[in-house]
Amino acid sequence: MDLLYYLDLIGTFVFAISGTISAAEKKLDLFGASVIGFITAVGGGTVRDLLLDLHPITWLIDMYYIWAIVLGVLSTFLFRRYIVKLRRTLFIFDTIGIGVFTVLGIQKALLVDILPVFAIIMGMVSATVGGVIRDILCNEIPLIFRKEIYATACLAGGAIFFILNSFNLDLNLNYIISILVIIGIRTVSIKMRLSMPNIK
Amino acid sequence: MDLLYYLDLIGTFVFAISGTISAAEKKLDLFGASVIGFITAVGGGTVRDLLLDLHPITWLIDMYYIWAIVLGVLSTFLFRRYIVKLRRTLFIFDTIGIGVFTVLGIQKALLVDILPVFAIIMGMVSATVGGVIRDILCNEIPLIFRKEIYATACLAGGAIFFILNSFNLDLNLNYIISILVIIGIRTVSIKMRLSMPNIK
Amino acid sequence: MDLLYYLDLIGTFVFAISGTISAAEKKLDLFGASVIGFITAVGGGTVRDLLLDLHPITWLIDMYYIWAIVLGVLSTFLFRRYIVKLRRTLFIFDTIGIGVFTVLGIQKALLVDILPVFAIIMGMVSATVGGVIRDILCNEIPLIFRKEIYATACLAGGAIFFILNSFNLDLNLNYIISILVIIGIRTVSIKMRLSMPNIK
Repeated sequence: MDLLYYLDLIGTFVFAISGTISAAEKKLDLFGASVIGFITAVGGGTVRDLLLDLHPITWLIDMYYIWAIVLGVLSTFLFRRYIVKLRRTLFIFDTIGIGVFTVLGIQKALLVDILPVFAIIMGMVSATVGGVIRDILCNEIPLIFRKEIYATACLAGGAIFFILNSFNLDLNLNYIISILVIIGIRTVSIKMRLSMPNIK
Repeated sequence: MDLLYYLDLIGTFVFAISGTISAAEKKLDLFGASVIGFITAVGGGTVRDLLLDLHPITWLIDMYYIWAIVLGVLSTFLFRRYIVKLRRTLFIFDTIGIGVFTVLGIQKALLVDILPVFAIIMGMVSATVGGVIRDILCNEIPLIFRKEIYATACLAGGAIFFILNSFNLDLNLNYIISILVIIGIRTVSIKMRLSMPNIK
Repeated sequence: MDLLYYLDLIGTFVFAISGTISAAEKKLDLFGASVIGFITAVGGGTVRDLLLDLHPITWLIDMYYIWAIVLGVLSTFLFRRYIVKLRRTLFIFDTIGIGVFTVLGIQKALLVDILPVFAIIMGMVSATVGGVIRDILCNEIPLIFRKEIYATACLAGGAIFFILNSFNLDLNLNYIISILVIIGIRTVSIKMRLSMPNIK
């Protein structure tokens, strides 16, 4: 599905921006910030492909991913002030990113013969692991463990996908609905300042 | 060997509890604590399987591992106060866990044609890497590098396994003896407050 | 090529020393320091082999790597004071190490059918990831993100390799020149206190 491919490149681009911004806030040098932008963008898909033994890993054979990342990193360096003001815009892209990455992860997982629950987990891995590695490299407890309904939105979207799929819904339509559900849950949770309960 | 499989599930359950407790102490939210419980439980086996190229990865095709983890995480949330008082009980299960994980790791490594020393390392990887990832995610220097004869107990148990194996000891009996050796070394070292020397 | 193999063992030896020294400075115990020495030495090659799906992983089938690491760790424990004074010597070996690891990484990547840019990235991964994992385990933001022209030297050397290769230069000669370029860039940058600009 071409739409998903293009959305994937956009997700990669936006994740590269978010990684580069995090690294810049830690006063890392240009190289460090670029590498962290890179890892943020491809980390989730890479871990998913390693776990599922899907080779070759997507970004290792498609230059467009590299271009998307280079563009993301360069944009951050050039338009840094502007990008910070664009936080709202970034949030939207980032949210689209996790929606697309989740659905792409599920799609990839279905290439292997695994149970739906594991496919949903692979979807979440695709969407969140890049950010987790970014936070570890920046020496912080990963953001997704600390706030926001983020990964849980991915899980919910993945569950919706399989529920609709059991009704034989058209696959492309199902992808779009699932992505919208993820975007919706996350947006509403931010607007309403929802977060997961803390256990201590 | 069925016994080993059931002990593996118990190990998974106990490691999920230890991960969840660590995360809770860092004031992570419910989701974060669950994920860290999950990773603590499956991390070691996953890294071992990736290094040895053993696919599919066990927990991706067996729902019982998920149930063991869900049970471990839920138990921690529900019986938290009670579990803290049960530290001694937990210690026993955790120690059984590393014993079983070490022997299972060696057993898996023997599926591939590698030297005993690497099989022993794979045993130790199975038993310890989950805890290492748990500590990294919680932004701490991994516990096993800082105190206790923990990983060294795994190495010793692994060595015993191969020594007994060279005498053609019955495999199941050998598994049990090696597990008991690991449990014994760790228990004695805790009782006697032994720890590895520090080099600076 | 035998020369490359022996240089690889020397690189492994020196990286094991650098890992052990870092761990010792964090007051880790003997076991922790040894494991971190081990991971520093083999981490880069392992991640590269996992990404490229090259199995079995080199150090899992060749005892000489283990001996090189054991020797590195033991030397650090025995001759610690002496080694600290030898910082200059260590720097030279470490620099040779990253040069050799980069070229070896590219050579390995060429076993798979990927584009030059990805082979260069794999060269850099081979040379730097071990150090990155070392720093994460020691709970620090990875050194290569913070200072020195280190990874960029690897990238430059990798680029030189492919440029010379396009002129059909003899492969062994090309390996040596590329290694020397990496060593040269890093040495000059240290002497002249060059570093990458910081973006904030």
